[in-house]
Amino acid sequence: MATNLYDYAYELEKALRESDEYVQLRGLYDQVNADESAKRIFENFRDIQMNLQQKQMTGQEITQEEVEQAQKSAAIVQQHELISQLMQAEQRMSMAIGELNKIIMKPLEELYGSLGE
Amino acid sequence: MATNLYDYAYELEKALRESDEYVQLRGLYDQVNADESAKRIFENFRDIQMNLQQKQMTGQEITQEEVEQAQKSAAIVQQHELISQLMQAEQRMSMAIGELNKIIMKPLEELYGSLGE
Ligand SMILES: [Ca+2]
Ligand SMILES: [Ca+2]
Repeated sequence: MATNLYDYAYELEKALRESDEYVQLRGLYDQVNADESAKRIFENFRDIQMNLQQKQMTGQEITQEEVEQAQKSAAIVQQHELISQLMQAEQRMSMAIGELNKIIMKPLEELYGSLGE
Repeated sequence: MATNLYDYAYELEKALRESDEYVQLRGLYDQVNADESAKRIFENFRDIQMNLQQKQMTGQEITQEEVEQAQKSAAIVQQHELISQLMQAEQRMSMAIGELNKIIMKPLEELYGSLGE
């Protein structure tokens, strides 16, 4: 082959970096990072979510207090305009990444699907 | 933007499909699929591996008999020239995919790394 597989990956990486989804997400991240209060609220929410996820994955018990703490931090985040925007932008980016992966992984999916036919 | 993010993903998908790694892997899959004996050995090995993985992930006990069965099927597979080639090709493909993902996900990694600085 004349061109390298990785060249196409670098092209996609560049396109991702310049995409509306990424530019918006980056802008919102910068705004949250520049706002001490928003940053603290967002990081607190993230820490609580990650802690709960880890407990769920490892089968640890989640206390009533932790559930209430998570609900409280989610309510604060939902009422915060900037953080809400950031989380919506994260979701759009995540959906785009999912679509990209689906496209790129199609050849392998076809291959593994062909076994056992 | 003039061009769509997904166009770049389709370009990469096409390049992946035409890559040495994929063409070799596909060829070996076809050979294994066309060889009843090889296909049975390979599928048996896969089933045993997946069963063990699932048990490990869900924390179920793995019996001594299952360990021995897995070792036996791994030994058979290692001595099978065609299946060994297929598994090496799978590993090369998997490494290439890992590299591609690292390249494509760089912008997001940078973003998430910037939080909390
Ligand atoms: Ca766009
Ligand atoms: Ca090549």
